[in-house]
Amino acid sequence: MGKKIKKIGVLTSGGDAPGMNAAIRAVVRACAYYHTECVGFYRGYQGMIEGDFVALNARSVRNILPYGGTILQSARSKEFMTKEGRAKAAAKLKDAEVDAMVLIGGDGTFRGGLALSEEYGIPCIGVPGTIDNDISGTNFTIGYDTALNTVVEAIDKIRDTASSHNRLFFVEVMGRDAGFIALNSGIGAGAEEILIPEEDLGLERLLDSLERSRRSGKTSSIVVVSEGDKIGKNVFELAEYVKENLPYYDAKVTVLGHIQRGGSPTCFDRVLASRLCVKAVELLMDGKRDVMVGIMNNDIAYTSICKALKTEHTVNKDLLRISDILST
Amino acid sequence: MGKKIKKIGVLTSGGDAPGMNAAIRAVVRACAYYHTECVGFYRGYQGMIEGDFVALNARSVRNILPYGGTILQSARSKEFMTKEGRAKAAAKLKDAEVDAMVLIGGDGTFRGGLALSEEYGIPCIGVPGTIDNDISGTNFTIGYDTALNTVVEAIDKIRDTASSHNRLFFVEVMGRDAGFIALNSGIGAGAEEILIPEEDLGLERLLDSLERSRRSGKTSSIVVVSEGDKIGKNVFELAEYVKENLPYYDAKVTVLGHIQRGGSPTCFDRVLASRLCVKAVELLMDGKRDVMVGIMNNDIAYTSICKALKTEHTVNKDLLRISDILST
Amino acid sequence: MGKKIKKIGVLTSGGDAPGMNAAIRAVVRACAYYHTECVGFYRGYQGMIEGDFVALNARSVRNILPYGGTILQSARSKEFMTKEGRAKAAAKLKDAEVDAMVLIGGDGTFRGGLALSEEYGIPCIGVPGTIDNDISGTNFTIGYDTALNTVVEAIDKIRDTASSHNRLFFVEVMGRDAGFIALNSGIGAGAEEILIPEEDLGLERLLDSLERSRRSGKTSSIVVVSEGDKIGKNVFELAEYVKENLPYYDAKVTVLGHIQRGGSPTCFDRVLASRLCVKAVELLMDGKRDVMVGIMNNDIAYTSICKALKTEHTVNKDLLRISDILST
Amino acid sequence: MGKKIKKIGVLTSGGDAPGMNAAIRAVVRACAYYHTECVGFYRGYQGMIEGDFVALNARSVRNILPYGGTILQSARSKEFMTKEGRAKAAAKLKDAEVDAMVLIGGDGTFRGGLALSEEYGIPCIGVPGTIDNDISGTNFTIGYDTALNTVVEAIDKIRDTASSHNRLFFVEVMGRDAGFIALNSGIGAGAEEILIPEEDLGLERLLDSLERSRRSGKTSSIVVVSEGDKIGKNVFELAEYVKENLPYYDAKVTVLGHIQRGGSPTCFDRVLASRLCVKAVELLMDGKRDVMVGIMNNDIAYTSICKALKTEHTVNKDLLRISDILST
Repeated sequence: MGKKIKKIGVLTSGGDAPGMNAAIRAVVRACAYYHTECVGFYRGYQGMIEGDFVALNARSVRNILPYGGTILQSARSKEFMTKEGRAKAAAKLKDAEVDAMVLIGGDGTFRGGLALSEEYGIPCIGVPGTIDNDISGTNFTIGYDTALNTVVEAIDKIRDTASSHNRLFFVEVMGRDAGFIALNSGIGAGAEEILIPEEDLGLERLLDSLERSRRSGKTSSIVVVSEGDKIGKNVFELAEYVKENLPYYDAKVTVLGHIQRGGSPTCFDRVLASRLCVKAVELLMDGKRDVMVGIMNNDIAYTSICKALKTEHTVNKDLLRISDILST
Repeated sequence: MGKKIKKIGVLTSGGDAPGMNAAIRAVVRACAYYHTECVGFYRGYQGMIEGDFVALNARSVRNILPYGGTILQSARSKEFMTKEGRAKAAAKLKDAEVDAMVLIGGDGTFRGGLALSEEYGIPCIGVPGTIDNDISGTNFTIGYDTALNTVVEAIDKIRDTASSHNRLFFVEVMGRDAGFIALNSGIGAGAEEILIPEEDLGLERLLDSLERSRRSGKTSSIVVVSEGDKIGKNVFELAEYVKENLPYYDAKVTVLGHIQRGGSPTCFDRVLASRLCVKAVELLMDGKRDVMVGIMNNDIAYTSICKALKTEHTVNKDLLRISDILST
Repeated sequence: MGKKIKKIGVLTSGGDAPGMNAAIRAVVRACAYYHTECVGFYRGYQGMIEGDFVALNARSVRNILPYGGTILQSARSKEFMTKEGRAKAAAKLKDAEVDAMVLIGGDGTFRGGLALSEEYGIPCIGVPGTIDNDISGTNFTIGYDTALNTVVEAIDKIRDTASSHNRLFFVEVMGRDAGFIALNSGIGAGAEEILIPEEDLGLERLLDSLERSRRSGKTSSIVVVSEGDKIGKNVFELAEYVKENLPYYDAKVTVLGHIQRGGSPTCFDRVLASRLCVKAVELLMDGKRDVMVGIMNNDIAYTSICKALKTEHTVNKDLLRISDILST
Repeated sequence: MGKKIKKIGVLTSGGDAPGMNAAIRAVVRACAYYHTECVGFYRGYQGMIEGDFVALNARSVRNILPYGGTILQSARSKEFMTKEGRAKAAAKLKDAEVDAMVLIGGDGTFRGGLALSEEYGIPCIGVPGTIDNDISGTNFTIGYDTALNTVVEAIDKIRDTASSHNRLFFVEVMGRDAGFIALNSGIGAGAEEILIPEEDLGLERLLDSLERSRRSGKTSSIVVVSEGDKIGKNVFELAEYVKENLPYYDAKVTVLGHIQRGGSPTCFDRVLASRLCVKAVELLMDGKRDVMVGIMNNDIAYTSICKALKTEHTVNKDLLRISDILST
């Protein structure tokens, strides 16, 4: 099935995620193990268009495993979304004699790979690397576990001071379309309320719930707010609204922002990245293409990239219930 | 099936694990949510025998979620292994009007629960809390993910200095019978070699492999050794042996010891503990007994305690292979 | 000088700071060591007014050393600022037979102690506990070192993603009147610019400097902004302003907020708290009063509370210079 | 005084310490700021002998600030201790047109610099970089604060499990000749006993003290042991000895080892390294030589290297007293 793979390219694209370096390292070391050449493109598809790449051997990825970010840098390339951009990229790939690509990123990354494969016949394997955990065909994306721990550690620190005063804290976390980070980190940090895009709690119910918390003897409360929450107010407006309606609370705001995209990856993310990327190289060697490798029920599995793109964010309703019970 | 549950007892037993407090909190809050009384026994079965317990309400477990250890303390009770010990314990349970127990710990803990149920008809639900991840019926035990991260963070620090010198480091990690911690943390930390009880690498192959690493351009190597490794030498003897045979290496030893049992639990362990323990209370309310709740393929599931006790440590051979490839 | 001290009270007041528990522990253990009784008042002066206190012995402070927050809770009491409030507080102290107080907090806390001493003759010793490091008579306040590390760790994570994209990050840190946190954490984290209340850099110079950074080959920049910065814009407005004027930058904002008040104290803060508070108790036993204990040139020293209140924030100009040199 | 400095060399030597990268970065950036060339020698004096160096500009040290280890690697060179070795090194310096050196390390490093200066007239400035804090002429060495926090975090984790069982833990920390790490981390972590080279507590007194701890109601104890402790037993023998004599204790051992030399430097160490190394370059530009820059009473100061070598480890007796009081 197709010609022999002699040189594999790798890139990271989209919002960066902890564990991308672990992923690059695994691609490079697997290539070395199987005596296949490997090159890395800088700044995602933009580097591909510009022919900005580097040859990578086993020693090139020495000691990158523990570090956040990506040595290949990540970017979003508008040019690659045009036919002309992709033509340039394909030409550069041909010049560089790259036979196949491993693409580490989210759904935008995979869409790019699909176009490259359909239009220019380049075999591509996608690896889900994003903190948002919003990709079909895998239970976990690389970076998600680390982001959860970053959020939980931050809220733990806020809790220290919350328990010393009578305070209400709003913490905004990432997740424009999906509340996975908010929901899981909220449970992990013992938040009193969790506001996510998938569920419109409503302002009234929020006030009721905070009022109930206070009456149950809680002297402080923490509300985790997903940045994509549909409650119609940003986190500062939300804090103001609550202060006006529940004046005994002194509401404070923290916006975690890009802290969530960085940090040394957790063991979970490192092992996940390692397993997925070794498999990605092996799939290419075996003639597979246009699939995404993921982890399903604790086993490495692959699905067609087309299917992986049909992301539906179905929030685990049971976690909402658990959160309610635990904030009793 | 059985009488109505009005009061549930909870205890932690065996070697303690990060997330035990998160587990206790979830039991207590779930009881509060379902208007069921809850008491906690100190020092595992020993506190049960001595009638050393405390009533716990939703506010009793305020702010314990982020902390390692267990507020109920954990212990191994020799007395409870005797018929007389268990008779005393059962009598104390009756006095305290405890209708059912949630037991957080490892296989020893579950064995105790089974005896209590069979001999005295006390409904028991087991929750797997141990860093060793060696329990059947669950993909993950509470505390395991935290322990892995503790080990990886320690090895990352050693790697800093390893990459500055030409050194060989031996790091002993926990796992008397099972190499799960060594294998996963070894991959997570990028160890050059991983020695586990399930696989006897042999001293010759270890030397060969280190020799090969050096020739491939590596200036330092890290070997993770499971304390139960069957290579026939303790970690200090191992370091001496290698120093004698590969004299250009300056071999150093770290023994992590009980550091691995402590620390603030990761988000993964907190969410796992929360979900398992809410379910444990709900199962008791529903009339279930003598089962262990676990997580299988990302869903909460339960199996009979008898089955959970038949632990077989089958190491994931694929991980050994991945480790080999990545240390290229 | 004065009657024999048989019972010492302790409280934490004002914004809480990591290390306050270490400080309480040291007061309590020193009292136990010197066979003096000890009581702790909850919620600062408010608990004193309400007679809300607890007897503390050596075992009461078991295991609190590593934890952020304060077991006695901290608060700002408006009532205590009135003569009536202080009269109530003094009466409660008399009822409780408290002979002297150790007061852990910032300048507001010390002002309260001075009033108590002058109006009711209660010997008071102040201990500087605040993350702001803005107290005269001590080189370091308890909590400052921890807050610096919290900020630096957060910016390190942002740097991971900054180095992967072409980005500009604004990070708002605490320090309403003093830029100590911004200046030191900015150097520690390698920020390209540091905006502090003491120095009005001016918007033009900020733009110039960012422009220069870019031209020197930097692909991303981090600007640390003290919340009290006098540049006339909040951090979000600042980001907008820069985006409008330097459109090639994609500016992102993080507001660290109360994360900076929590977390496990560093070794430095724990040892500082321990040394200062043992000394505070010993000073009271020796008949001293109305002084603040601090650390000056690596030695424990004390100054009159009156003098400690005359805080002048003189920023270390040399650090500004160092920051300039290092962001070359 | 001497010819104009046009090119400065930098190296790290001896046992590595967190903050060495921050130090290298500050040397390089200060050179760039002052339009002076800079080269870095690999593996300390060994790289100097071999002419193994690299030109460093402001961008070469991008993003190294947060990382442990040293990008220049550190080593101990036996060859440099010979006259022949130093002759080779001096010749290489001349070839490379290096006019002066900044030497980051401990007393061995400084001794090397002094020889280089005396024998070959190379101006040298020493910067104290070692976790041991055992250098005269500076209150703090680079890396010491980070090492303390590493030890304290490790013991905090052990404490979690200590407080859950009735246990005795021995933790061996670094410090062959000086007990600074043991003493300060022991106080920071609330150790019950601290064994240091400077004070022979004696085995009898250790047993007495542990016995007293237990009677005072403590259920567990932690003993910090400096590797250079003169009690005549290694930490495993010590644990055995105590188990034999106090059989109710279950004694466990942790050997932290090289974990203490790694990890991301604390803010304190980064700021210290930055300040010292900017000053080192400025001193060279000003014609100073053969001095060590240090921090004395919160100010940057310098002393002759000769004086810095006359290290006397005078342990702060007051800290021993504080430790006694706090373990009440």
